[in-house]
Amino acid sequence: MKTEIQSADTVRPPIRGAQAPPMISDTPTRSTSLNQNPTAVIYCEGNFARIDGKTANGLVRHSEAYRIVSVIDSNHSGDNSGMVLDDAINNIPILKSLDAAVAHYTTLPDTLIYGMAPSTGRLSTADRGVVLDAIARGMNIVSGLHEYLSDDTEIAQAALARQVTIRDIRKPKLSKDMRLFDGSVANVDALRIAVLGTDCAIGKRTTATVLARALNAKGIKTVLVGTGQTGLMQGAKYGVAMDAVPPQFCCGELEGAIVAASEAEQPDVILIEGQGALSHPAFCTSAFILRGSQPDAVILQHAPKRAHRCDFPNMPMPTPASEIALIEAFSDTKVIGVTINHEGMSEAEIKDTITGQTEKLGLPVTDALSRPTGHLLAMVLSAYPGLQQGMPVAAI
Amino acid sequence: MKTEIQSADTVRPPIRGAQAPPMISDTPTRSTSLNQNPTAVIYCEGNFARIDGKTANGLVRHSEAYRIVSVIDSNHSGDNSGMVLDDAINNIPILKSLDAAVAHYTTLPDTLIYGMAPSTGRLSTADRGVVLDAIARGMNIVSGLHEYLSDDTEIAQAALARQVTIRDIRKPKLSKDMRLFDGSVANVDALRIAVLGTDCAIGKRTTATVLARALNAKGIKTVLVGTGQTGLMQGAKYGVAMDAVPPQFCCGELEGAIVAASEAEQPDVILIEGQGALSHPAFCTSAFILRGSQPDAVILQHAPKRAHRCDFPNMPMPTPASEIALIEAFSDTKVIGVTINHEGMSEAEIKDTITGQTEKLGLPVTDALSRPTGHLLAMVLSAYPGLQQGMPVAAI
Repeated sequence: MKTEIQSADTVRPPIRGAQAPPMISDTPTRSTSLNQNPTAVIYCEGNFARIDGKTANGLVRHSEAYRIVSVIDSNHSGDNSGMVLDDAINNIPILKSLDAAVAHYTTLPDTLIYGMAPSTGRLSTADRGVVLDAIARGMNIVSGLHEYLSDDTEIAQAALARQVTIRDIRKPKLSKDMRLFDGSVANVDALRIAVLGTDCAIGKRTTATVLARALNAKGIKTVLVGTGQTGLMQGAKYGVAMDAVPPQFCCGELEGAIVAASEAEQPDVILIEGQGALSHPAFCTSAFILRGSQPDAVILQHAPKRAHRCDFPNMPMPTPASEIALIEAFSDTKVIGVTINHEGMSEAEIKDTITGQTEKLGLPVTDALSRPTGHLLAMVLSAYPGLQQGMPVAAI
Repeated sequence: MKTEIQSADTVRPPIRGAQAPPMISDTPTRSTSLNQNPTAVIYCEGNFARIDGKTANGLVRHSEAYRIVSVIDSNHSGDNSGMVLDDAINNIPILKSLDAAVAHYTTLPDTLIYGMAPSTGRLSTADRGVVLDAIARGMNIVSGLHEYLSDDTEIAQAALARQVTIRDIRKPKLSKDMRLFDGSVANVDALRIAVLGTDCAIGKRTTATVLARALNAKGIKTVLVGTGQTGLMQGAKYGVAMDAVPPQFCCGELEGAIVAASEAEQPDVILIEGQGALSHPAFCTSAFILRGSQPDAVILQHAPKRAHRCDFPNMPMPTPASEIALIEAFSDTKVIGVTINHEGMSEAEIKDTITGQTEKLGLPVTDALSRPTGHLLAMVLSAYPGLQQGMPVAAI
């Protein structure tokens, strides 16, 4: 049973677990003795730090599966990618071409990641040339395009001839290799917490990532199961890109990822990355996540200053109270706290909102980014005090 | 914007609307002046009336899109398909081979429908030979296999050379041709009623089909929007096979089908075929249907004698009351009645159950098959009396 989304054409290189204890810094350059990840160059010509470059942007900030050694974008040639993106220097230079990227590193980078999401969904002629060039040099290819490079005859044949792999992140497994839900998730020992939200693009993955790190740092072994393309490309070791799975397999594939994580890691806690919102009129991924993971608890991410749903200006945002009621009506679980996305809020507003919502909802409320990580940790530990003593969840 | 699921390789032949006034009988043989549907032979070797032949079984009972002229299954050669399936004679003979099927009809049948669902998911060598033979004779091919015949090089090339079409029912449109939900379903004038259920395989489609016919017979123009493979293969004119659509497009594609039906037909009522059950731990299609169709009302199909969920012997069935509460919590809609699947029930039990549940739930309860159609009709008309006078729903 496969737990990671991969094209039928590739073998995924071994990756270091995403849940290893946190590094001192998040920079991707690590000594060879610690990091066996393949090196990668991100191709992002004309789009770094822009909307269509979001895959690249995410990987520059955080990549567990690959060691990103450079970004290709002639518009920013010579700049530091961390400075361009976040005003914070990192170890990833932006170079002007594949030639420059290959020349820059001591050994040939293992992989070229096509890090763009063009609105056409297709490779331009120029980009095609770069991909074929990388293949000719012996680099593996990773792509997040909806048009699969492994289905492109010219590219596939070139890769085959050169014996390099193509990994289409968005290409689903064959239906016959997918698994139906069978209820085995209920037998997983680990405490399962889903991080859901009141909207899309609201910080669920960020909060889940911060919480996973904090729990692991506390010696509470925690695995984060990814449910979206970005999280998986960033290297979540377990998960399924749910938007690439036919609906009848969504619950089963997620269950499979959770069971696999449980068997391989025997963690104390499994966190599940939410998608969308249960109340969202246009999406149902939260429903799949609740059904497929059967979480013991839910943490709800909300953005108090967001008036309307992301991408749907005619749809007002729900309140945390209504979302909590819906989640608890839809599934046998308990919302144990709310985390704030402070977009558009001053420090004073954050403070008042946290105080006000705590009182209104009778639940812990915090902010994974602006508040100490200890507050987020306390949300879980106060609901499950036995975790800290290493007691099995069933005894709590 | 496409409303019908079709492979990229085919143009679907024009079909007579599924919502035309009911025929006197359901036999597929109709005079040429009434029926312009393409003729089809169903290939079902070794599997007619068995589980793996369920596509064929369904088409023999009811087919709007094709005129079924014969079934191929050497195990039943010479028998009448209606007698074998339902102890009721129909006009579809079972013949022993493609040769016999072609010889039997006055003109070459238009289409060969591969009517089996083998557990391997693949064509056997013998079956492959039959498909290629049909192509060589100039017949179009329809297949419900998960392995797409249009992706099979030998078969695709043969079809191209012979200028016949291959229609892979289960092959989804390209993602770039799919549509995201945008809320336009809320502007559809027709009254929207979703027929949901407490479980899979419980009679939702049957009830919806009976209700659509009854409303149309009453002069209340009604369109049934299909949401599953079987309904679409049987010829529902509008709909989407939701298990072939990536999750992020499910709500949008269903919305698209409803909007298309509304624009083309200007019906008074749109019925939406449910899938699964909202409470079902393993599936979320009901969630998509509620979100994508935003129904004004729901009719809930239940099987009182079913103790455990179909295919999940460890999952007890929910009660109608709990399912109604969940549906009304999850979406802004109203359950207006319950319809019974009387599997395992005597006439006395049906009678008592209907009486008892009516009282318990405070809602109309009936059985689309064992009770007069008028009772099912009354369920809708008592909730929406203005329908009968041809008043717009908004005025009710």
